Amino acid sequence: MHSPTDTTAPLCPTPRLGDVLDARCPSRMILSHVTSRWGGLVMIALGEERLRFAALRRRIGGVSERMLAQTLQQLEADGLVERRDHGTVPPHVDYRLTAPGREIATRYLELAHWIETNLPDLIAARPAPAVAD
Amino acid sequence: MHSPTDTTAPLCPTPRLGDVLDARCPSRMILSHVTSRWGGLVMIALGEERLRFAALRRRIGGVSERMLAQTLQQLEADGLVERRDHGTVPPHVDYRLTAPGREIATRYLELAHWIETNLPDLIAARPAPAVAD
Repeated sequence: MHSPTDTTAPLCPTPRLGDVLDARCPSRMILSHVTSRWGGLVMIALGEERLRFAALRRRIGGVSERMLAQTLQQLEADGLVERRDHGTVPPHVDYRLTAPGREIATRYLELAHWIETNLPDLIAARPAPAVAD
Repeated sequence: MHSPTDTTAPLCPTPRLGDVLDARCPSRMILSHVTSRWGGLVMIALGEERLRFAALRRRIGGVSERMLAQTLQQLEADGLVERRDHGTVPPHVDYRLTAPGREIATRYLELAHWIETNLPDLIAARPAPAVAD
């Protein structure tokens, strides 16, 4: 049993920009959760507003109930998303970004927004298709 | 057979910020390649310099030959990475970011850098571990 405040474990052997390239660095794990298939989309959706599970699922096209639950659990364990149970009957549970979650969501949104905005150019500049769908 | 300049297909039904939340929008596909397990790390590594396959693989801890090859093919098909065959004997092939690839890599790096810089706080602010390793 160890205290949750025990953060004496080495983080990155050599803390510097670009440590995500080091497989041993925990930053890579957090980055992988944020950029998992649904992680970033969940953070974008929650950047707009606090949402209940069903509303979040409707907001994100194509996500299954199971994958959304798993993604929310990961982001919650990383301290990026907060689950709030209002303790009412019938139960009312919703999700929102934490302060670091908002910081990360902002940066992820900038990435997504750039792609979205430049989509016509990106598609036009693609090399001739090498692989069929 | 269609011309590679045929970009008349509808992109997003309703182009606006946040279309990545729409499963039908091609921006989501590009975003998913950029944020695939290795896509972003490849772009960070290539943001530093033009690299040959073997050097790129050494730079990115933990990537397999197969996954690196697949990731490079995806990014090349998206027009974000350029493969250059110098046509020499013995063969010399290297990879670099295209102009849009650099734009995206910059934004991805900002996301990764924020996580890296704030890693001690992120770890300290985590909720008590809910799941064992």
